[in-house]
Amino acid sequence: MKWENGVYLVLDQLRLPENISYIECLSPEDVARTIVNMNLRGAPLIGAAASAAIVLNYSLEDPADFRELFNMLLQTRPTAVNLRNVLEEAGCLYESNRSKTASELRDVFKTFSDHVHARDLERNLTMGENGADHLESIFGKKRLKVITHCNAGALATCGYGTALGVIRSLKKRDMLEHVFIDETRPYLQGARLTAFEMVCENIPHTLITDSTASWVMKTEDIDIVITGADRVAANGDLANKIGTYPLAICANYHKIPYMSAMPLETFDLSIMSGRSIVIEKRSDSELLFFNGKRIAPEKTAGLHLGFDVVPAELIHSLITEKGVISGGISEEKIAGLFK
Amino acid sequence: MKWENGVYLVLDQLRLPENISYIECLSPEDVARTIVNMNLRGAPLIGAAASAAIVLNYSLEDPADFRELFNMLLQTRPTAVNLRNVLEEAGCLYESNRSKTASELRDVFKTFSDHVHARDLERNLTMGENGADHLESIFGKKRLKVITHCNAGALATCGYGTALGVIRSLKKRDMLEHVFIDETRPYLQGARLTAFEMVCENIPHTLITDSTASWVMKTEDIDIVITGADRVAANGDLANKIGTYPLAICANYHKIPYMSAMPLETFDLSIMSGRSIVIEKRSDSELLFFNGKRIAPEKTAGLHLGFDVVPAELIHSLITEKGVISGGISEEKIAGLFK
Repeated sequence: MKWENGVYLVLDQLRLPENISYIECLSPEDVARTIVNMNLRGAPLIGAAASAAIVLNYSLEDPADFRELFNMLLQTRPTAVNLRNVLEEAGCLYESNRSKTASELRDVFKTFSDHVHARDLERNLTMGENGADHLESIFGKKRLKVITHCNAGALATCGYGTALGVIRSLKKRDMLEHVFIDETRPYLQGARLTAFEMVCENIPHTLITDSTASWVMKTEDIDIVITGADRVAANGDLANKIGTYPLAICANYHKIPYMSAMPLETFDLSIMSGRSIVIEKRSDSELLFFNGKRIAPEKTAGLHLGFDVVPAELIHSLITEKGVISGGISEEKIAGLFK
Repeated sequence: MKWENGVYLVLDQLRLPENISYIECLSPEDVARTIVNMNLRGAPLIGAAASAAIVLNYSLEDPADFRELFNMLLQTRPTAVNLRNVLEEAGCLYESNRSKTASELRDVFKTFSDHVHARDLERNLTMGENGADHLESIFGKKRLKVITHCNAGALATCGYGTALGVIRSLKKRDMLEHVFIDETRPYLQGARLTAFEMVCENIPHTLITDSTASWVMKTEDIDIVITGADRVAANGDLANKIGTYPLAICANYHKIPYMSAMPLETFDLSIMSGRSIVIEKRSDSELLFFNGKRIAPEKTAGLHLGFDVVPAELIHSLITEKGVISGGISEEKIAGLFK
């Protein structure tokens, strides 16, 4: 993501890794479209993009307009909570700057958006070190074999990544042996994005189909399974890309720690458990068509859910920029992170 | 599969469901190629096709030739044991007909191959009824919600199917509510073949990505998970299409019975446990390319295993044409099926 002459440029992740191209966003609606269509994705990045969308609004001085903009952005995708949290911050900022002109407001929000982007990168750098410290305390200076799912990397954030940030920090410490990457159907974020990041970082990796992960756990001496998260409830239940739940179940079956890395922004303390997390249902055409070709009979319908929920009982550790929780995830421990 | 003027015609399953086309096999090598390339697949069907391949050999009277043919066919695919079992039957038949001419031998093997094809269908019909009886004894006349993986249907056998045979028998008894089908990466046998069979039978079904199955278990009141098998060890451990293992782990986590249906031909009593089953490793290009398009960076390698192994402890029931084993799978119970 970058600004060029007042235009917000969004890297089109749907075209990676073959094509590195940017979508020019001239209006909040342009940004919203890239979120809905998943040209950009990843909980922290969606939040950051929303902050940029506000800057592209030219009638910020009208509170009704601001409210409409807020709602329009909030509705782009329902599961990741970072979007709502960033928008609520922006709402507070708006309230405290109501006397300003439209042009002044745009400056305020441009500064805010730059801050949102910069602090996300900073958080991830800290989170990566926290995660690597935590893993070093468990495994010592061992080189780890890791499974990850989807993309919780630089491409899902404003840089460095959450789960992939921890992996990057492991590599710096010479504590990384190999990364097995779930391809992550139907969008193939693992194959297209995570593999791309691993190639760029020169990290040894192997792509597997999603349902190969448990056999790899059984046969490859995997040390940890690590993913990002899109929303964490007060009790630690977390929503993440569909396929994370079976991965956590299978990791537990094999007594391999399942860990998740996310900024505090991804917590939603207003909900007690994962049961209250809205799971996004997307068009089944994203599952039934590949490269424009239908993979199933005409009369077959599909169910395409964007996320599933991992219950806290299956989670070994939550890694954040404020510290790591492990040894039984509880409401008290999570509340402690926010003190 | 059908014979036409001495040519064995193999339905090209790689082109289903869009195209219904047949590959003409004029020699054993032609049949072997369709097995290696997975134009035809499914443990029972591979065994049946091997019996047809023998008929296409024109120098059967030379024992060295027969041995070479035997080995060539045996090496096409390593995991499913039906192939070896049918070939060994053919070997015995060969021994007891050594005095016959080449032409007489071909008649013997044509009769044998027709018998292998016909008995497979017959076994599946019995297996389907056995499975439905078993499920009726557990659930009563309830309409069941089922998850299946890959294709253990008419297309994997000589008709009716193993797991899908049970599903067909359930439907006849009005005991079927809905079938959720794992698409089954990378070959998409679920999307292409099982969905096709469900459409033909007018059975309500929904296609899901493989890693959606456990969320469906949690949210859709699934009654059973049922698959076929490619090899069952003496202790009940079974190999089946990659992705069956996590499905069985997740079914157990949700306290949903995981069942598998297979003819006795699929048992390999010469091996004590699943540890001795050879897992076929296939080219990673089958994973890295999707509809001719590469899905991952050039520098990314993949791991493509054809199968995984479900340990007996995760199996609720084994359904065969000779009866059903459940309530703890043991070597004794399995041996009992062969008495």
